[in-house]
Amino acid sequence: MSHNTIGHLFRVTTFGESHGPAIGCVIDGCPPRIALEAADIQAFLEKRRPGLTRFTTQRQEADEVKILSGVFRDDASGRQVTTGTPITLLIENTDQRSKDYAAIKDAYRPGHADFTYDQKYGVRDHRGGGRSSARETAARVAAGAVARKIIRPVHVRGALVQMGPHKIDRANWDWDEALRNPFFCPDATAAAFFEDYLDGVRKAGSSIGAVIEIVAENAPAGWGAPLYGKLDSELASALMSINAVKGVEIGEGFAAAALSGEENADEMRLGRDGAPLFLSNHAGGVLGGISTGQPIVARFAVKPTSSILQPRRTVDRAGAETEIATKGRHDPCVGIRAVPVGEAMVACVLADQFLRHRGQIGAEPGWPFTDKT
Amino acid sequence: MSHNTIGHLFRVTTFGESHGPAIGCVIDGCPPRIALEAADIQAFLEKRRPGLTRFTTQRQEADEVKILSGVFRDDASGRQVTTGTPITLLIENTDQRSKDYAAIKDAYRPGHADFTYDQKYGVRDHRGGGRSSARETAARVAAGAVARKIIRPVHVRGALVQMGPHKIDRANWDWDEALRNPFFCPDATAAAFFEDYLDGVRKAGSSIGAVIEIVAENAPAGWGAPLYGKLDSELASALMSINAVKGVEIGEGFAAAALSGEENADEMRLGRDGAPLFLSNHAGGVLGGISTGQPIVARFAVKPTSSILQPRRTVDRAGAETEIATKGRHDPCVGIRAVPVGEAMVACVLADQFLRHRGQIGAEPGWPFTDKT
Amino acid sequence: MSHNTIGHLFRVTTFGESHGPAIGCVIDGCPPRIALEAADIQAFLEKRRPGLTRFTTQRQEADEVKILSGVFRDDASGRQVTTGTPITLLIENTDQRSKDYAAIKDAYRPGHADFTYDQKYGVRDHRGGGRSSARETAARVAAGAVARKIIRPVHVRGALVQMGPHKIDRANWDWDEALRNPFFCPDATAAAFFEDYLDGVRKAGSSIGAVIEIVAENAPAGWGAPLYGKLDSELASALMSINAVKGVEIGEGFAAAALSGEENADEMRLGRDGAPLFLSNHAGGVLGGISTGQPIVARFAVKPTSSILQPRRTVDRAGAETEIATKGRHDPCVGIRAVPVGEAMVACVLADQFLRHRGQIGAEPGWPFTDKT
Amino acid sequence: MSHNTIGHLFRVTTFGESHGPAIGCVIDGCPPRIALEAADIQAFLEKRRPGLTRFTTQRQEADEVKILSGVFRDDASGRQVTTGTPITLLIENTDQRSKDYAAIKDAYRPGHADFTYDQKYGVRDHRGGGRSSARETAARVAAGAVARKIIRPVHVRGALVQMGPHKIDRANWDWDEALRNPFFCPDATAAAFFEDYLDGVRKAGSSIGAVIEIVAENAPAGWGAPLYGKLDSELASALMSINAVKGVEIGEGFAAAALSGEENADEMRLGRDGAPLFLSNHAGGVLGGISTGQPIVARFAVKPTSSILQPRRTVDRAGAETEIATKGRHDPCVGIRAVPVGEAMVACVLADQFLRHRGQIGAEPGWPFTDKT
Repeated sequence: MSHNTIGHLFRVTTFGESHGPAIGCVIDGCPPRIALEAADIQAFLEKRRPGLTRFTTQRQEADEVKILSGVFRDDASGRQVTTGTPITLLIENTDQRSKDYAAIKDAYRPGHADFTYDQKYGVRDHRGGGRSSARETAARVAAGAVARKIIRPVHVRGALVQMGPHKIDRANWDWDEALRNPFFCPDATAAAFFEDYLDGVRKAGSSIGAVIEIVAENAPAGWGAPLYGKLDSELASALMSINAVKGVEIGEGFAAAALSGEENADEMRLGRDGAPLFLSNHAGGVLGGISTGQPIVARFAVKPTSSILQPRRTVDRAGAETEIATKGRHDPCVGIRAVPVGEAMVACVLADQFLRHRGQIGAEPGWPFTDKT
Repeated sequence: MSHNTIGHLFRVTTFGESHGPAIGCVIDGCPPRIALEAADIQAFLEKRRPGLTRFTTQRQEADEVKILSGVFRDDASGRQVTTGTPITLLIENTDQRSKDYAAIKDAYRPGHADFTYDQKYGVRDHRGGGRSSARETAARVAAGAVARKIIRPVHVRGALVQMGPHKIDRANWDWDEALRNPFFCPDATAAAFFEDYLDGVRKAGSSIGAVIEIVAENAPAGWGAPLYGKLDSELASALMSINAVKGVEIGEGFAAAALSGEENADEMRLGRDGAPLFLSNHAGGVLGGISTGQPIVARFAVKPTSSILQPRRTVDRAGAETEIATKGRHDPCVGIRAVPVGEAMVACVLADQFLRHRGQIGAEPGWPFTDKT
Repeated sequence: MSHNTIGHLFRVTTFGESHGPAIGCVIDGCPPRIALEAADIQAFLEKRRPGLTRFTTQRQEADEVKILSGVFRDDASGRQVTTGTPITLLIENTDQRSKDYAAIKDAYRPGHADFTYDQKYGVRDHRGGGRSSARETAARVAAGAVARKIIRPVHVRGALVQMGPHKIDRANWDWDEALRNPFFCPDATAAAFFEDYLDGVRKAGSSIGAVIEIVAENAPAGWGAPLYGKLDSELASALMSINAVKGVEIGEGFAAAALSGEENADEMRLGRDGAPLFLSNHAGGVLGGISTGQPIVARFAVKPTSSILQPRRTVDRAGAETEIATKGRHDPCVGIRAVPVGEAMVACVLADQFLRHRGQIGAEPGWPFTDKT
Repeated sequence: MSHNTIGHLFRVTTFGESHGPAIGCVIDGCPPRIALEAADIQAFLEKRRPGLTRFTTQRQEADEVKILSGVFRDDASGRQVTTGTPITLLIENTDQRSKDYAAIKDAYRPGHADFTYDQKYGVRDHRGGGRSSARETAARVAAGAVARKIIRPVHVRGALVQMGPHKIDRANWDWDEALRNPFFCPDATAAAFFEDYLDGVRKAGSSIGAVIEIVAENAPAGWGAPLYGKLDSELASALMSINAVKGVEIGEGFAAAALSGEENADEMRLGRDGAPLFLSNHAGGVLGGISTGQPIVARFAVKPTSSILQPRRTVDRAGAETEIATKGRHDPCVGIRAVPVGEAMVACVLADQFLRHRGQIGAEPGWPFTDKT
C-alpha cells in the first residue's frame, strides 16, 4: 500500500500540511556511505522556493531543510554520510497566514480537492489546502536531491515547453537558458513572450496551464521491470501524483497515435565503439518498460491553478449554493514550479528502479557472495 | 514490489509467455460470496480475442478460460461463488507458430522489447515476443471481468476515439455503435472511414497508432488515496503498463494546459435532489486524487504496431548490422484490441480503490465490530 | 518492502538513532475523525520511559511527543481529530552522552548489532547503538497508542511472566498488580522476589532475560488473512522485530508439541446467548491465521541485555583481538521495558488487520456504495 | 499486502484448494539465467509427498509439478533456464475423496480453521479443509526448490528434534540419519523410539505435536534489513505461516530468557584466516536482524494434527451442539512433513533477503553502471 509513500526499494514517505508545524519526508532504502549534507538538498529546494519572482506565490518560506536521522559524521574525514537507515528531512512552515483561508473553510473551491477530501474523510484541514497543497512538493524536491546522489552519473533536467496554448520552439532549445529565466523555459524567445503573457494572466486574477518536459540522460539500458513495474508505468504514476497534473506521456506520447510503424520505429546501427546505437528516440528511452540507454523523455500537463480571483459558483458543506473567489497568495501558473518537482519525481523513480534492478539481476553461480567485499 | 502484480487489495499477478503452454493470472483479495462462472469471464475475452476480423492478427486462439481455484459451488443453490481465497485463471495457448519467429531470434526488432530484455536479462524467449507479447493482455481482460463484479454498479466502457491522425466526431458519440463495428468506435461515420483507411494500412504492410477513451460511470465520490495512491496516479500506471501505450491523460488532459483557471473550473450547484452537482467535468471525475462522483474519464495513446512488413535497419545479438521485417501475424492497429484491455485495467484499479477505501475509512467508535454481521 | 515500516493499511515507519537529534514515526493509514491529542500518546510513553526505577537504564529522557501532522483542531468543538493524512510523531533526544560510547566505536560488542551493521553497511552510528538501540522502541509505543484508538473496544495488556529461569505462578495472576510493581509482573509474590533477584544481577554488572505475555481481549472473530498475512504470522513478525527478542509463541506455543490432538482441541458449545463458545483456548485466539473471538495470547522471549560490565572477548574493525566491557547506562533486564513495547506491537498488528479485514470483506451487491454516508 | 504472497523481491504467491483441480504458485522475481528443470523441483516434492509410509496420510498424490511459464530452453545448449519472468508451477490434485468430508460440511472441527473461515468469509470449501489444508504446503516446497538455486552455496536442512514430550539427544545428531528414517530425525536412537511411539498414537486414533529445527549454513554476513525487515522477523513470519505452527525461535530462543548476559554473549576471536570468528552461536546466526555469517538456526513448534478419530464436542453452522470425529486420511504427526516445508520457507526467506541485500547496498560512485556487463 502506498497512500503517502512512493517507491519500493528507494521509498519516500511524505508528511505534513500547508499550515501545520512542518512538512517533510522519510526516505527508507537509501544505500549507505553516500556523502550527504543539508546543503546538497537545499540547493534544489531553492529552485522550487516560492516568492522569488512575481510569477510565483508571494508566500515567503525559507524552506530550510534539517536532516533528523540516517546520516553519520565520520570524525576522521569530517564527512557526513548516509548509514543505510531511514533519512528524515524536516522543513518547518514559517509563513502560514491561515486567516486568509477562513472564507474557504466551508465552501468548496472548484478545481480543488476540498469537496473530495470532505466526501472521503468527513474532515479536512482547509488552511492553505492542508495536505493537498502544493507545499507538499517541497518534500518531493528534497527527496529528489537524495535520489540524484544514488544515480549520480544520470543527469535529470526539466523545462517548461508550453504555457497556455503557446509552445516553445524546440529549435531554440538551450538547457542553460532554462536556468536563466523565471519559467525554466529553454527557449529565450518564448521566455520573453511568457513574461508579458503571464503578467497579463496574473493581473487579470486568472491562471493558466503548462506542459513540462523532463529528460534523464546517461541512464544505462536495463532499468525497469515488466509488466507492472515498468519504468514508464512508474514514471506515469509518479508524475501524475504531482498536484494539478492531468496527463503524462513518454517519448512521442500522444503524437505516436498519428504515426505509422515505419515512422515510429527507432532503427539501430552500430556506433563507432561497436555498440548498438539508436538512430532516433521516438520511444523516449523506454521499450517494453525497460530503459534503452537513450535519454528518457517524459512530459506532463499541468492544469491552470484552481485558486483564482474570479468568483466561481459552488456549494458549501451546509448544502447551500454560493460563490467563491480565492484571495490567498497563489501562483498564476503552477506549472512553473512543477519543473523542479517533476525532476525530483523522475530522479526518485530512477533511483528506485536502479536499486530494484540490482535486486533482480545477477544469479550466475558464485557471484552472489562476492558482493559484500 | 510489483514486477508482475497490479493492485494492493485487489491484486492481480499475471504470468505466461506468448508461445509457452499457457498464460493466466492469480487474483488475490477478491471478496467472498460473489457469483462467478467461467462464462462470466469468457464474455469479455471474446471482445479481445484475435482472429475475428481482418483488422486483427490472424492467430486463432480459443482463449478458453479455466478457473483453477478460489471458487466453490454450493450444493444447495448450485451457484458457484468466490471464497476469498486466490482465484487462478488459466488460458492455454493453442495456436503458437514458433517457426514464424526463428528469423527474429537474434535480431532486435525496432520498437519491440527485444533489445531491452536482452540487455536486462541476458536471455529472452523470442517466440512471439515471449512475455512482452500483447497476448499477456488476455489475462488482464480476464482479471477485469472479476473486478467488474466487485464494483458492479460501476459501468466501465471504452471506445477508440482516434486512429492515426483521424479523430472521431464526438457529436456522433453512440456507445451502442462502439459494439457494432470492429474498431470499438462510437462514431459510425468514423468507423466507416476507418474500415477503408485501415485496409490501406494493412495492405501496405504498415501499421498505425490510436487513442482510446475509457469512461467509468456511477462510481461514488471518495475513492482514491492521496498523495501517492491517487486514483488518477494508479490509472496512469495501469494504463501505461499496457503494451505500446505512450501517453495517458485524465479529463481535459493535455488540453488543460491551454485553459485558464476560469475555463477549467468545474463549478457546482445543487441538483434537484439537493445533492452537490458539478456543472462540467474538466477534471475527468478526479480531484486531489479522489473520485468526485462524476464519470471517470481516461484516455491513452497506443503507438503503431512495431511488427511491420517494411524492412527496418537494426543490429543483432552478435553485434552485426542487419535488416528485419516481421513476418508473423500481427494487428495493423494494435490500439483496437487495447479497448477491452483498457476497460479491464480501469475496472481493476477501481476494484482495488474501492477495497482500499473500505480499509481507510470508518473509525467512529462502536462501528468496527458491527461489520461482520 | 518494509525495511523500517510495519503494517499494510495501518503503516508505521519509524526513524531515528539513539544519539541523533530525534526519533519518531510516520503513521500512514490511520482513519479520519479519531480524537487524538499528544497527551493520549504521552501516557503510554511514560510506561516505557527510562530512568524511573533502579531497574532500568538511568538515561533521563523526557520522551515528550509532538504531533507534526495528520491532525486538525475543529474550532467549534475544540477537539483535535485525525484527518486521514500521515500522522508524524516526533520525540527529541535530550540526554545523549555520546562520550560514554567512544570506547565501543571500533570494537564489536558481543550480542550487539555492531558487527553485522558494519558487515552490511560498512558504516555505523556507534553512539548508543545508533539505529539498533532500544531507544527506537519509544516510537513503537507512540504508534501503538494511536493503534489502540482505532481498535478501541479491544483491550491489549502485557505482563512479565518469567525473569531468568524464574516463572511466575499463573494462579496469582492479577492484572492490576502488573501496574503496581516496576516489572509489569502480574504475580505479587514473584514481583517481590524479582526485586531482590534483579538487584543481585544489576550489582554484579550482569544482565538477565525474560518472557513477556501479551493478551488482547475483545477482538472479534474474523481478523487475519490466510495464508501469508495470517494474524499469528504478523504477530510473530512484529514481536520478533523488537530488539533482543529470540522467540515468539501463540497460545500453547512450544508446549503444544507435547500435547495430543484430544488435549489440544478447543471444544465448542453454545453459550447462554446461543452463540458458539470455546471451552478452552489452547489456540491463543487464532485458528487458520484468523481470530476466533477468544483472547489473543502471544508470548515472546527477550535475551539478556548484551551491554554488561563483565569484559568479553571480541575483535575490532581493524582486525585485532580485544576485550570489551560496556560502560554506558543500561537495563539489567531489558525484558521489563519490552512489556509496553510488546503491547504496542500487538495493537499495531491488530489495527492493521482490522483495516485489512474491512478491505477484504463485504461484496454483497448493493452494499458498497452505502458506506460513505 | 500479502494475503497469499510471501517475499518482497523473491515473491511467491500460492493458490489452490485441497480438492480443487490443482494447487500451485507463481514465483515473481527469480533472477534470469538459472538452470531450472521440473526434475529439480520434483526431488524436493518427493520428500514431502504423502502416502510413502504409515506415519503420514494415506492420500496418494503423484505431486507431479509442471512449469507453465518463466523458463526458456536454449536450442544450442538444450539447457532450460529462467528468464526473469514469472515462474508458474502447477501440481494437479488427483486423489481427492471429497465424500469423506461430507460429515464435516456443517460442523466445525476443533483445532481447524472451519469456524474462523466461516466467520470471516461466510463461505468455505470444506472439502479436505479447502485452502487451509496442509496440501498447500506442496506449493511452498516447490517454491523452495527454486529459492535454493538462487542461494546455491547456502545449505538449508531440517530435522525433527522433538515428538510429543520426547526430545532427541543432540549428542547423537547425524544429518545423514535424518534422511534415512521416516521422521527426518537426526538421532537414530530417538528415531527407533518414535517408530513405536507414533504407532501407538496412530492406532489410538490420536495425534501428537513436534518441534522442527532448520539450519542454513554458509550464508554470508550482511543479509537482513533492520528494523521491520529483519531476517529473524521474516523467518518468524514465514515459519508461523505454516499450518499448525504455534511457536518460532531463533538460536537459543526461549532458553535465552534464562541466561545471563555473560552466558549469552557470542564472543569473537580471529580465525586462522585472520577473519572474525564467533566462539559460540547463541544468536542463531542473526544479530540486529542481520546475518552474522554463522549457521542460521530456527526452530518451530507444530501442534498435534487436529483431525483425530476421537470424537470432540463442537457446534455446527445451524447453531446446534454436536460431536465430531474426523474420518478422512490424516497424518498422526503433521510435524514430520513440516520438515521439508520449513526448509522451503527458510530457503524462500533467504533468497528474498539475498536479493534485497543486492538492492540495498553498493552506492559507491561509479560502480552502478558496471553491473550490467
